[in-house]
Amino acid sequence: MNQPKIKHALPVTRDEDFAQWYQSVISEAELAEESGVRGCMVIKPWGYGIWERIQKLMDERIKEAGVENCYFPLFIPLSYFSREAEHVEGFAKEMAVVTHHRLIGDGKGGLIPDPEAKLEEPLIVRPTSETVIGAAMARWIQSWRDLPMLTNQWANVVRWEMRTRMFLRTSEFLWQEGHTAHADEADAMAETLRSLEMYRSFAEDVLAMPVIAGPKPENERFPGAVETFSIEAMMQDGKALQAGTSHYLGTTFSSAAGIRYQDKEGQQALCHTTSWGVSTRMIGGVIMTHGDDDGLRTPPQIAPQQIVILPMLRENDGDAALLTYCETLRADLLKQSAFGERVRVLLDKRPGKATAKRWAWVKKGVPLILEIGGRDAEGGQVSVLRRDRLWNDAAKANFAGMARDEFVVAASAELEDIQRAIHAEALARRDAQIVRDVTDLAGLSTYFAEDRKFPGWVELGWAKPTGAALDKVVEQLKALKLTIRNTPMGAAPASGTCIFTGEPAVETIYIARSY
Amino acid sequence: MNQPKIKHALPVTRDEDFAQWYQSVISEAELAEESGVRGCMVIKPWGYGIWERIQKLMDERIKEAGVENCYFPLFIPLSYFSREAEHVEGFAKEMAVVTHHRLIGDGKGGLIPDPEAKLEEPLIVRPTSETVIGAAMARWIQSWRDLPMLTNQWANVVRWEMRTRMFLRTSEFLWQEGHTAHADEADAMAETLRSLEMYRSFAEDVLAMPVIAGPKPENERFPGAVETFSIEAMMQDGKALQAGTSHYLGTTFSSAAGIRYQDKEGQQALCHTTSWGVSTRMIGGVIMTHGDDDGLRTPPQIAPQQIVILPMLRENDGDAALLTYCETLRADLLKQSAFGERVRVLLDKRPGKATAKRWAWVKKGVPLILEIGGRDAEGGQVSVLRRDRLWNDAAKANFAGMARDEFVVAASAELEDIQRAIHAEALARRDAQIVRDVTDLAGLSTYFAEDRKFPGWVELGWAKPTGAALDKVVEQLKALKLTIRNTPMGAAPASGTCIFTGEPAVETIYIARSY
Repeated sequence: MNQPKIKHALPVTRDEDFAQWYQSVISEAELAEESGVRGCMVIKPWGYGIWERIQKLMDERIKEAGVENCYFPLFIPLSYFSREAEHVEGFAKEMAVVTHHRLIGDGKGGLIPDPEAKLEEPLIVRPTSETVIGAAMARWIQSWRDLPMLTNQWANVVRWEMRTRMFLRTSEFLWQEGHTAHADEADAMAETLRSLEMYRSFAEDVLAMPVIAGPKPENERFPGAVETFSIEAMMQDGKALQAGTSHYLGTTFSSAAGIRYQDKEGQQALCHTTSWGVSTRMIGGVIMTHGDDDGLRTPPQIAPQQIVILPMLRENDGDAALLTYCETLRADLLKQSAFGERVRVLLDKRPGKATAKRWAWVKKGVPLILEIGGRDAEGGQVSVLRRDRLWNDAAKANFAGMARDEFVVAASAELEDIQRAIHAEALARRDAQIVRDVTDLAGLSTYFAEDRKFPGWVELGWAKPTGAALDKVVEQLKALKLTIRNTPMGAAPASGTCIFTGEPAVETIYIARSY
Repeated sequence: MNQPKIKHALPVTRDEDFAQWYQSVISEAELAEESGVRGCMVIKPWGYGIWERIQKLMDERIKEAGVENCYFPLFIPLSYFSREAEHVEGFAKEMAVVTHHRLIGDGKGGLIPDPEAKLEEPLIVRPTSETVIGAAMARWIQSWRDLPMLTNQWANVVRWEMRTRMFLRTSEFLWQEGHTAHADEADAMAETLRSLEMYRSFAEDVLAMPVIAGPKPENERFPGAVETFSIEAMMQDGKALQAGTSHYLGTTFSSAAGIRYQDKEGQQALCHTTSWGVSTRMIGGVIMTHGDDDGLRTPPQIAPQQIVILPMLRENDGDAALLTYCETLRADLLKQSAFGERVRVLLDKRPGKATAKRWAWVKKGVPLILEIGGRDAEGGQVSVLRRDRLWNDAAKANFAGMARDEFVVAASAELEDIQRAIHAEALARRDAQIVRDVTDLAGLSTYFAEDRKFPGWVELGWAKPTGAALDKVVEQLKALKLTIRNTPMGAAPASGTCIFTGEPAVETIYIARSY
C-alpha cells in the first residue's frame, strides 16, 4: 500500500523554501503583516497576544529580582550621542532623526515639514536607552546606599535597518531593556549573569526553546561593553538566532554620563553598569523553533488561548443545546490550572464552517482543539486534537474521542505535556545538528560548503585570539558566511589545537550561520 | 488652648500655590521628573507602578468587551496625513517629523544628520493612529462578516506641545487607543457609548475620581469626529480635567482610508468608525483629586503597594526577631484579597530611620502604613496609619494600635473603606463646587471674576447654538478663560433661557476653567 499523503495547511514547506515558509507562517497564523511603513510591522492579535504572554511572564521574573520598571523618553538629544561617540568605538549611527516639530501646507494641497519649525538640536528616536537612562542615574545616585540601582523599561525602539524581516529585524521593535548600576565589577557582573540566567531559563521553560548561554567573542560585543553574553537558539534550518543579550558595561557609560557615587570611605567612584534585553525577536525564534508545515505550534505557556472549542453548528434547532454544552465545558475548563495559572479557553462561536475554523486554529498553533458535534454533546464526549500530533497514519487530522469529564481533568496535564514534548523535540534536533569532528579550517569549509541543506553548528575549541589575530579569524569566517556565536557557560576546558591559530585551544565556541 | 499646628510633609500647600503644590507632589512622591528632553518626562517606579495598575485593570475591561490588542507602527508616512488633511478640518499639525535615518561625524568631533541619508518621504511620529489603523482596517475588512472590528493598542504618542506640565500635557505620553469599525451608525454609536461608560465607571470605581460623562460641544470635538464624548473630573482647584474621550467618527476616516465592506445584499458600503483613549493624564487627575498637603493619597485599587510594613530596626540583636515577625505578618497579609485581587504588601527593610521612611511612604500615598517596633512584635501588636486619616487632634501621625491577627483579618475591608472614603470625599467636594444659580452672562463673569480662589463649575441650560452663533459663545467664554466641558448623559431636559442666545435652553452644560 502507498503511504497516504498528508496535505499540509501551508502553501510552502520548510524543506521547499525555509524563508518563504517563515513568511507564510506569519501570514497564515495572522501573527503580523507589513504595515506600508518601511521596516515597521503591524502585530496582529494572535502575535500581540503571544507578546503579551511573554511580557507578563518575563515581567514577573524581572520584578522578582527586585528590578523596578520606569519609563524614559522616546527622544534622545543628539548631543547625548556625541558624548557617547567619544567613549564608544563602533557606535552605530543608523537612527531615525527628528528635525522638525510642525507640518505646513505646501500650497499644492500637500503637507511639508515647516521650515520655521526646525529644531535647534535634532532628536534621535531611541535605538536603546543607555545614554538617557545614564543621565537619569547620574541624577539619582549619590551614595553607596543608592546602589545597586535596578531599573527596567518596556518600550519601542528604532534602528534603521536596510534589510528587514518580520520579528527578526524590523526598524521599530518592542523590547524590555534592563539598566543597572553597581558599586563594583563583582556586583555588576553578578547582575549581568543573573539576567543571562533569567533569559536562559525563560527560553527553555516558557518558550520551550533550547538555548546556549555564554559570552560572545570580543568582536561581537555591544559597542562599549566590556563583556557581552547571549542566549543562542538553533532554528530548524540550522542557523543560530541570538535571542537575548546581557552586557557588563564596566565604567564606559558611567564615565560618559557621570554616574558616580560616594563610597563608604567618602570617596567618589564611578558606578559599574549593565544592560540586558529581549525583544519581539523572540517570537521569530519561537516560529522557527516550533513551526511546522501546518503553521505555528504555539508553546502552551505563551499561547493566548490554550484550548479552542469549536462547536459544529448546523444553523438548526440543535445549535442551542450544543452551545450550552460547549459553554459548560468552557466554564469547567476555566477552573483548571496549568503552569500555575488558570487555563485559557476560547469558545469560537463565529459563523463559518467548522473545518475552515479548525485549520485557522491549527495554523495559529493553539495547543488543543476540541471539535464538538451534536452527537458528542448528547454522549458527553469531546473530540480532541493535539497540535503537536496533528496527523494520524491515515494522513488525517488526529482527533481522539474522549469522555468530556475525563478530558476536563486531564487538560492541564495534557498542556504541560505538549510544552515538554515540543521542548524535547527541539532539543533533540539541535543536539543532532551540532557537529564536533571538525579539526581544521578546510573541514569547516567543507561542512558548510557541502550540499547540505540545513547545516547546523560546529562546536570546537579555539585559542581565543584577540586584536589582529581575532580580526583574521573573523575575516576567514566571514568568507564562509559564518560567525562565532558564543562560548557555553560552564563547559569543560577545551583541549586540542585551535584550528585558526594552531595554538592550544582554551575554550569552546559555536560557529554557525545566523540570523 | 491653642489648636496644635500640623507640620505638613510638602514644602508648599494647595492653598498657597496649587500649581507649585502639584509639582511638589510629583517630585516628593517620586512619581516622575523632567528628563532633560523637551516636553518628555521620566516616569519613576512609583508613578510607573500606578500606570501599570491602570493598564492592567483597564486592559481587563477592554478585553472583556471583545476588543483585541494589536500593535501598529510608531511612524506614519507624511502622505497619510495629507490624505487626512483633505478630509479633516482643523487637523493639528504640531508633530515630530523624522527626516533623516543616519548620523555622521561633523568633522569637529560632533554628530549631525547625514545629508546623504535624507528620507524621500518624511515620517511622522504618531500623534494618534487613526490613519495608520484605518489603512490596516481597509486591508482587513471585506465583508459584513468581518464587522464589528474591535482593536486597541497600548502605545506612546507624541504631540508637540509648547507648554508642558507633567502627566497633564507632555510631548510624549503613554495611552491606549481603541479603534473600531462597524456596519452602521447605530452599532458604532453603541460602541462609542460603551467605551465612554467603561471610562466613567473606571474613573469612579478604580480611580475613586468622580466624573461627568457626556457629549462635548461641537467646537470641542476631535477634528473629523461627528460626536465627541468625554469624562470630566473636577480638580481640587475647581478646574476641569478631561480624563478620557470617545469619538464617533462617522465615515470621515473610512472615506479617507477606504474602509469599505460588502453588505448582506452584496453592495459596497463605508464603515462607521470610532476611537477612544485614556492616557497617563489620568495620573495627573488622580494627583489633583486625591493629593493633600502631605503628598499623594493613592487609591488602593491602583496603589502599587497597598500596605507597607516598616520595622523599627535598631541595628542590634533584636532586629532578627522583629524581621521574622514582620515577614510572617507580610506572608499572612498576602493571603488576603481586596477588590478581588491579592493584597499587595511591601516589607521595607532598607537601612535608614523609620521616621524618614514613614514620611517617604506618606508622600507616596501608600494607603496603609504599619510601623512595627520590638514591643509590638513581642506583644503581637501592629501600629497602623491610614493615609486618608493622617493626623490626630494633637497634630501627630494618627497611629492606632491593634492586635496583629485582628489587623490581618480587617486589612482588606480597611483598604476597600479607604477607596470608598476618598471617593466620597471627592464627590462631596465636587458637588459643593457646582453652581446652578447663574442666570446671565454678567453672573457668569462675576462668579469667575470674584476674588474666589478656586471657583468650581457652573451648570446651566443653553440653546445649543451651532455655526456662527456657537463661535460667538466660544469667544465670550474665551474672554473669561472659560470653556464648555460637556453635557451630562441622562440629565433631565433643560428648562429656562439660554444665557448666551436668549432662546429656550435645550440641554445642560458645564462651564469651567480647565487643564
